[in-house]
Amino acid sequence: MTDTSTPLGATGLSTATVDSAFAAPATGAEAIARVRRALTAYQPGTALGEATSRALLAPLGLPFVPSRTADSADEAAAIAAVLAGPVVLKALSDEVIHKSDAGLVELGLVTAAQVRDAYGRLAARTRALGLTRPAIVVQPMADDGTDMFLGWVRDETFGPVVLVGMGGVTVELFRDVAHAVAPLSANDAARLLGSLACAPLLAGYRGRQAVDTTQFCRLVAAVGDLALALPEIADLDLNPVRILPDGTCLALDASAVLAARPAAGAARHPRAPLDLRPLTRPRSVAVIGASRDTAKPGGRVLRSLRRHGFPGAIHPVNPAGGEVGGLPAVTSLSALPVVPDLACIALPAAASVEAVRECVRLGVPAAIVYASGFGESGPEGSALDRELRDAVTGSGMLLCGPNTIGVVSSHHQMAATFSQAVDTFGLRPSGTCVIAQSGAVAGSLVSHELAHGYGIGDWVTVGNQSQLDVADYVSYYAGLDSTTCIALFLEGVADGPRFQQALETARTTQVPVVVYKTGVTAAGRRAVASHSGALAGSETAYRAVLERAGALQVPEMTALLEVAWVLGHTPRPSGRRVAVVTTSGGAGSATADLISMQDLKIATFGEATRAAFAGVLPSFANVDNPLDVTAEGAFTPGTLRTVLEAVSGDPGVDVVCVVLTSITGDDAVRVAQEIADAAGPGRPPLLVSWLVSRALAEDGMRLLAHQGIRVFTEPARMAAAAALLAKEASA
Amino acid sequence: MTDTSTPLGATGLSTATVDSAFAAPATGAEAIARVRRALTAYQPGTALGEATSRALLAPLGLPFVPSRTADSADEAAAIAAVLAGPVVLKALSDEVIHKSDAGLVELGLVTAAQVRDAYGRLAARTRALGLTRPAIVVQPMADDGTDMFLGWVRDETFGPVVLVGMGGVTVELFRDVAHAVAPLSANDAARLLGSLACAPLLAGYRGRQAVDTTQFCRLVAAVGDLALALPEIADLDLNPVRILPDGTCLALDASAVLAARPAAGAARHPRAPLDLRPLTRPRSVAVIGASRDTAKPGGRVLRSLRRHGFPGAIHPVNPAGGEVGGLPAVTSLSALPVVPDLACIALPAAASVEAVRECVRLGVPAAIVYASGFGESGPEGSALDRELRDAVTGSGMLLCGPNTIGVVSSHHQMAATFSQAVDTFGLRPSGTCVIAQSGAVAGSLVSHELAHGYGIGDWVTVGNQSQLDVADYVSYYAGLDSTTCIALFLEGVADGPRFQQALETARTTQVPVVVYKTGVTAAGRRAVASHSGALAGSETAYRAVLERAGALQVPEMTALLEVAWVLGHTPRPSGRRVAVVTTSGGAGSATADLISMQDLKIATFGEATRAAFAGVLPSFANVDNPLDVTAEGAFTPGTLRTVLEAVSGDPGVDVVCVVLTSITGDDAVRVAQEIADAAGPGRPPLLVSWLVSRALAEDGMRLLAHQGIRVFTEPARMAAAAALLAKEASA
Repeated sequence: MTDTSTPLGATGLSTATVDSAFAAPATGAEAIARVRRALTAYQPGTALGEATSRALLAPLGLPFVPSRTADSADEAAAIAAVLAGPVVLKALSDEVIHKSDAGLVELGLVTAAQVRDAYGRLAARTRALGLTRPAIVVQPMADDGTDMFLGWVRDETFGPVVLVGMGGVTVELFRDVAHAVAPLSANDAARLLGSLACAPLLAGYRGRQAVDTTQFCRLVAAVGDLALALPEIADLDLNPVRILPDGTCLALDASAVLAARPAAGAARHPRAPLDLRPLTRPRSVAVIGASRDTAKPGGRVLRSLRRHGFPGAIHPVNPAGGEVGGLPAVTSLSALPVVPDLACIALPAAASVEAVRECVRLGVPAAIVYASGFGESGPEGSALDRELRDAVTGSGMLLCGPNTIGVVSSHHQMAATFSQAVDTFGLRPSGTCVIAQSGAVAGSLVSHELAHGYGIGDWVTVGNQSQLDVADYVSYYAGLDSTTCIALFLEGVADGPRFQQALETARTTQVPVVVYKTGVTAAGRRAVASHSGALAGSETAYRAVLERAGALQVPEMTALLEVAWVLGHTPRPSGRRVAVVTTSGGAGSATADLISMQDLKIATFGEATRAAFAGVLPSFANVDNPLDVTAEGAFTPGTLRTVLEAVSGDPGVDVVCVVLTSITGDDAVRVAQEIADAAGPGRPPLLVSWLVSRALAEDGMRLLAHQGIRVFTEPARMAAAAALLAKEASA
Repeated sequence: MTDTSTPLGATGLSTATVDSAFAAPATGAEAIARVRRALTAYQPGTALGEATSRALLAPLGLPFVPSRTADSADEAAAIAAVLAGPVVLKALSDEVIHKSDAGLVELGLVTAAQVRDAYGRLAARTRALGLTRPAIVVQPMADDGTDMFLGWVRDETFGPVVLVGMGGVTVELFRDVAHAVAPLSANDAARLLGSLACAPLLAGYRGRQAVDTTQFCRLVAAVGDLALALPEIADLDLNPVRILPDGTCLALDASAVLAARPAAGAARHPRAPLDLRPLTRPRSVAVIGASRDTAKPGGRVLRSLRRHGFPGAIHPVNPAGGEVGGLPAVTSLSALPVVPDLACIALPAAASVEAVRECVRLGVPAAIVYASGFGESGPEGSALDRELRDAVTGSGMLLCGPNTIGVVSSHHQMAATFSQAVDTFGLRPSGTCVIAQSGAVAGSLVSHELAHGYGIGDWVTVGNQSQLDVADYVSYYAGLDSTTCIALFLEGVADGPRFQQALETARTTQVPVVVYKTGVTAAGRRAVASHSGALAGSETAYRAVLERAGALQVPEMTALLEVAWVLGHTPRPSGRRVAVVTTSGGAGSATADLISMQDLKIATFGEATRAAFAGVLPSFANVDNPLDVTAEGAFTPGTLRTVLEAVSGDPGVDVVCVVLTSITGDDAVRVAQEIADAAGPGRPPLLVSWLVSRALAEDGMRLLAHQGIRVFTEPARMAAAAALLAKEASA
């Protein structure tokens, strides 16, 4: 008779012997230390069944249902006799995690004969399955209650992600699981439970009694703390945890997967936000590898700097000297009379490392290395990466790249980039900062903004991040007064906590962060032995981190800068009531649908508003929302202005969405001006969806852009942006 | 003791007395007639509880659990004594549909005392609730089984929509319900069950026994037939229907909502497809109201016809005569020497009706009425609508409109429209036919296609559909050899069955139909007293109809013509394995994610393919899928061609997706040509997402368009289109 957890009292045992005033497991240093010592006996990566998991976690005082091992049918019957009610027999083995599926659980046994028979069946099954060292245990049958799923899965980047759900099919078939990165408070846990689709079941659904989740939420928070304190356990399932009618929690099963290798925690390097001004707002720039050939990066960077009117000194550096791009070149960096703030190094990979070393020697505050051929290209490149890292480590020099298309600051008229986007379009300052892990994608997305008359404040592609990484840029830009929104094209980060810290900085400075996250497939999926593991991929951790930090994920790459611009340049509405004003009934009703699908409301126009419509719309016109002024209405000068001024002045309207169809040419410009006239400070935010081809209404669309009004093509994207604007607004 | 259904035998009664060989309810004419007679006793719109619903439906032999009314506690105990096992007591009233919520159900009563006590409690509760004429019934407690939801809701347009799901929370909280328009076969029902998220539970989930749904599927089909036969019943819930372990079905509850008014069925006007050639391919056209002022519709239509080279005679009709738009005008239609095929009537509403009458008198085969001011504009307009309808009824004349922007046939060089879209862009024939219930939206969407170099074959906006409606156009275009895809901007149809017939025609002729459906909000929601009603709005019926017909709904308006073009102009792949070839690692991995999310597979390249890469890509390049040729690769002439030819020739690749970033100017044209060279007959379908602003790569994008290759901006839209192409392909 082996005791695996709570001792059996001589006077019988029921679930009541579990501490019903359970507050939190023993997460004290001593208990944790005992568990960690015990864990050293197991192979990393092992999956542990109920018996082993319980035994290991015993010092923590988790509210497990009592359990006793029986070595024979008689012993099982004897244990059952001591217990006051029906019992459960389970055959436990680390080789079988899903016991019920394997027929290794016998429920609701009352008589000694039933217990003996069940023991016999389980013993036979363990033999049939060829299990080594199975244990057959007797447990009291728990009272009826609500079964919950609770577990964690350890993400390589962000550490443990806690999962909660209701047990059974809601978790398994409907994937109704909520996630949060640890640590989390009991209040956080309550919010998590509230976010489940099955939350109404807990709140007292259709006359059922509400489930008292107070203790469960405390348990969730405590499990989050344990996950942080026990890095050796990769995944843990407590499934189910039964919440009894009085709120007491009872863990009926447990399984753990040990980490295959030490958790990544040790590799974290939190650091204070760096001042990136030498990189983004340099007073002077040297272009090392400056070339007369504008097909080469060294030629393109120089041309971009000059074309966009960089206000400081530009020093081409070229071993041949002479004049490059209309400027006198020096033959080497050391030949410069002054040390430039920024060195743009447009050389091949190996030569770039040499140049960085020279920059460090000369005390250049910042450098950009454009070359590829580093870590991304194979073993040789990785060696160069290390050399580059070594060259800057401890130097205090800021390094962007390698393998970057560069840095642009419109506010500073500085385009230290070889991107084609700035060949054709001028820089246009705005509050948007773009930080991208793909230069090609960033350049493409930026080109749309510039082509359409929207600005980009700063724009940096991080490249291989040999030194400066996404978190550094986020922290820096979040701290600038000129930043109104950060757009992030994100593949992944190496240092999760530092990234979280950067997002926290942005939240503190109230700079919204919009994210397009890629890398779902590339991340791959490890083989999973736990439910938790199957329910949470790497994307889950990113989503949980972004959500907690209030960052917004967009589902379409080409929506990234669109949404960022809207959030950075449009005042937040105070409510969720949207007016739709359109030149087409069909487009208007479609947009009203899309608005409704976004959890926004279709505003009701007030009497004064309707009266204002009467002056400019025909008597038979439908003056409801969505309001169709018709194409004829739009062609009559002043109609749209009058209507939009009335709608914008309606106290029942929080957001105005204008949907235009085939308003083209000169009409497009006039209509755009009327819209712009009706928008502005003190008015509700106004968004426009203009469905016609840009080629037919280019000037009108550009006028709106220059007046600070976003023009969407697709109404669904406008509706989604309106919802993001109104995210914090009450009903 | 009132018998509400099956008689109680003297020898006891259990669920076994229900016909366990149940095949189908009695849907014979006599049983139906009895039910319909009984229904006349009830007010239309009434919600009926279990007792009344069962009594009404009794002639149909639905597999209800037996039920007996008890007028006293003693009588209840006596009935229970006759039954062989535990019983259920329910208090029934038409005033309470959700009995359990109201505490009016007492389960699992075994002893006479329990039954008496339960009776007392129910009687007290009915008094407390103030129910008039409640009935307390005794029913045998059904054996354990699987509870299903089964019901119908009657859609105004399409008639009864049958709903199935698993009982309880999967239906209520997760909305896991499948819908099909009646009639449906037992096989259809099995497919519906298979489409549920909870289907694995029925199929034998995690060691549970599979549920034998054979009888349930027959019941579903029979219920669909009943729904068609009983138009007086708007909604019916059989909730739950319990499937016993042997497959027997037992309806444990029922509630019905009677139709508020006679069902729409009688208003249906099926008709054979009409030959619309006089309207879409006329040999001669008269423009009535032709004007010299091209700001007016009569001027615009005339100009459009001439500008796009209409090959037949064009006759301006203007009371002033003289020359209009360079053509001699006649003063009236009757002054023409010949009867034109098509009259384009560009006059105000009332004058248009007059003109239509004259067309009918003269035997003009087809007319378009552009004017608004008809039914859409109020009571006066509705009167004109009726006049218009009366004028054409029985005449055999085809009428498009009123309130339409017209008809365009690129194949016939006929642009009988005042849309701005054809002012700037030339017509370009293609297999796409656009049928739209909004002229403004259609014009806008078409303008994108024409601006980007894609063609539109025919294009009609249906206007108020005084005569010809969406179904007529779908049927007609589906029958033309030149049609490869129909794109439908759909608000709603008046005649559901005729619309279904038109979709069926398109399925028969293998013309894909792509639909953007609007009108969710406008449709409103009727107050619902049934579960079914709450679970199925008008959109549900449209979705069920479109799905059954194989039509494809797109979620974004601006995707409608994009997807239609792809489906109409791209060969179907034989499998689902996608190769991603990109100039940017970041864009490539993002696209691979999007492909994976679409239930497509990332292809594995064969050895020969990898060997071909080796000739043009650096040795360190990652030659996996997604394949990043890098921007440098794309700048090297021939690289992309070589890579794409290898990928297209790989037997493991079914679809090729190319993702381009900042390839601009001359490079854009060269790269586009290389892509076009690698595509073509016998090669896998190839789609392109080109992320950079069109302004920077216009010529390259146009080259691809003219070579029959679709260029998307957003990779997610490309991935979605690829999935639609591969919809019928096996893995």
